[in-house]
Amino acid sequence: MNNSEKKNEYGSVGIVETKYFTFAYPPDEFVLTNKSKLGPVNIAYETYGVLNEDKNNAIMIFHALTGDAHAAGYHSSGDKKPGWWDTMIGPGKPFDTDKYFVICSNIIGGCKGSTGPSSINPKTSRPYGLSFPVISIRDMIIPQKKLLDHLGIKKLFCVAGGSMGGMQLLQWLVSYPDLSKGAMIIATSPTHTAQAIAFNSVGRYAIIKDPNWNSGDYYEGEKPDRGLSIARMIGHITYLSEESMHKKFGRKIIDDKQSLADYANFTKEFEVESYLQYQGKSFIKRFDANSYLYITKAIDNFNITDGFENLADAFKEIKAKCFVLSFTSDWLYPKEQSIKIVKALKINGIETTYTNFDSPYGHDSFLIYDERLKKLFSGFLKSLEELVL
Amino acid sequence: MNNSEKKNEYGSVGIVETKYFTFAYPPDEFVLTNKSKLGPVNIAYETYGVLNEDKNNAIMIFHALTGDAHAAGYHSSGDKKPGWWDTMIGPGKPFDTDKYFVICSNIIGGCKGSTGPSSINPKTSRPYGLSFPVISIRDMIIPQKKLLDHLGIKKLFCVAGGSMGGMQLLQWLVSYPDLSKGAMIIATSPTHTAQAIAFNSVGRYAIIKDPNWNSGDYYEGEKPDRGLSIARMIGHITYLSEESMHKKFGRKIIDDKQSLADYANFTKEFEVESYLQYQGKSFIKRFDANSYLYITKAIDNFNITDGFENLADAFKEIKAKCFVLSFTSDWLYPKEQSIKIVKALKINGIETTYTNFDSPYGHDSFLIYDERLKKLFSGFLKSLEELVL
Repeated sequence: MNNSEKKNEYGSVGIVETKYFTFAYPPDEFVLTNKSKLGPVNIAYETYGVLNEDKNNAIMIFHALTGDAHAAGYHSSGDKKPGWWDTMIGPGKPFDTDKYFVICSNIIGGCKGSTGPSSINPKTSRPYGLSFPVISIRDMIIPQKKLLDHLGIKKLFCVAGGSMGGMQLLQWLVSYPDLSKGAMIIATSPTHTAQAIAFNSVGRYAIIKDPNWNSGDYYEGEKPDRGLSIARMIGHITYLSEESMHKKFGRKIIDDKQSLADYANFTKEFEVESYLQYQGKSFIKRFDANSYLYITKAIDNFNITDGFENLADAFKEIKAKCFVLSFTSDWLYPKEQSIKIVKALKINGIETTYTNFDSPYGHDSFLIYDERLKKLFSGFLKSLEELVL
Repeated sequence: MNNSEKKNEYGSVGIVETKYFTFAYPPDEFVLTNKSKLGPVNIAYETYGVLNEDKNNAIMIFHALTGDAHAAGYHSSGDKKPGWWDTMIGPGKPFDTDKYFVICSNIIGGCKGSTGPSSINPKTSRPYGLSFPVISIRDMIIPQKKLLDHLGIKKLFCVAGGSMGGMQLLQWLVSYPDLSKGAMIIATSPTHTAQAIAFNSVGRYAIIKDPNWNSGDYYEGEKPDRGLSIARMIGHITYLSEESMHKKFGRKIIDDKQSLADYANFTKEFEVESYLQYQGKSFIKRFDANSYLYITKAIDNFNITDGFENLADAFKEIKAKCFVLSFTSDWLYPKEQSIKIVKALKINGIETTYTNFDSPYGHDSFLIYDERLKKLFSGFLKSLEELVL
């Protein structure tokens, strides 16, 4: 059953519209972690459900590396693909839009409506390219706090994020420790391991070595599609588990098919090869190579303990009840990294539940429809209702 | 202590020379698995130690993906880097050249002296490029059997190989089940998983998408160095363990250094990035991109059970005593794959010892100096002395 078939059964938020919010008009520009200034800054965002009178039913969702503001619903009646977390957001779903007001915005540095390297630099009237400042995970969350202020929301019912969304969430909790009742910290890490940096760095290398990259100034010509597709293919392998790849593809062959693998007499192409190539080709239609460079570097540079003695010290002011979730088959952010987070929260006496969820789908498990996972999410959100912030 | 410092302490085979053997002169060409014909075929090989009068002290070594015939010793007095398995081959070492006659040859399809896509096609007087036929792991071992015949050797004391060398060895045992007293099957697999295929396929994609690749016809112009270096970087990550990367690099930063990562204001470069880029750059100096395509495809296509009911059926004629070795931190060919081999050998009543060796160095562990590993190797080889073939 695919997402669109599930639409009717579980309810959908229906047709949604991306909205925009702008702040940091010069001379009051946004000052980034590295002291650069950026402005004006546009933030693309979507909201689902209705903000109640007390303005205490808002849930903020942070997206992952290649995500965007479009977390649920459809952009038009002909739109076949719902938002990226449509399995979880909608009437009757865990992030229940009959009860909660759900907000998701595109990060700065991205390419889906918020200001990023592909946006027009007002000073030059050309795309920023590499004149876009280096960003940090912290620089991603401050604009989202500005958005909350803009919406007149002072407290959040819950914050949730997986993967890089989880990193944003950890930074959110450290920067704004008393803003949220609950926090759902999913498939993430306090900092990248050398291996995770290594995978990202080969992706970046593939982009900057693409002759079309042209030092990031490619917006008026051919794009570094080869490099970006290679980066995506590498990333995609790390998002799946060996087990799920084995189940899905095994050693199955596509026969009698003209394909890239046909370059010599290599007429046998493995399904997994064709699948990865398809992933690479789809990705270049929707993502900007410079955004990929800036965002992956922000992820690799992220270390939530920077400026603190250790992880427990970083978490000492957090007031939110926390739900930490890892997946048994996630080898990109294995459970040990979630357990570190759990221990540091518990050292501070922060109410924390932890689940190492049994799933064969690897790092991407949190994006896959799973009835048990929905129940876990619903249960945690329900437990927040009794709490007072 | 590096390899060259260990040279004096443990003994070295000293200065060695690569030799050449040619067979399959037309019209008696070598018929490959896919029915193509190739000839003449050159095989580059090296030998260490002395073949005894009974010609029963020979050990055949099969090399891995990027290996070559130069397994031990030095090519000149100024040569700083010994052969790729110099830790194991030499006087007093496990493959003891005071006792054994050790043979290692470069596979066909390779680029280190044996006939491969970069060799001159006698029919056109130009490099084969993509007119080189698709090869299989079986096609790699038949020429090595021809070499044995050429050397007048009818039986082997032992055969040994790690990684793709282990695949050649499995094929050797199936094709020539009664030729060897012992077999050392190291860090390998009966067939590639979808994940292992996926990593190789992204490397191939990077090569064929390099504009310099030119459908494999690049020998007179610029080479597809970008693509090949990306392929190597991806491969290299899979050869190391997360643990060894963490110990070696962690999140260490190279500061104040002009580097690729300097493309924007990304002045912080992780050591692991710089290391991988160095690996990529070194590799392109010594390896041919087309060879990388042909050899990785042979690896991905390899399935030792092809033509048999199952693994045990494939192994039913094997007469060699077997030593199977996996490494605790090898995630490319994890222990489960070695255990499959062990079970299939034992079902056939083949005398087999198995070790899952505790090492933090990942797949490449078999190439790393380790005194315990040497003892394991020596012990197994000693146990063969009592056996009669």
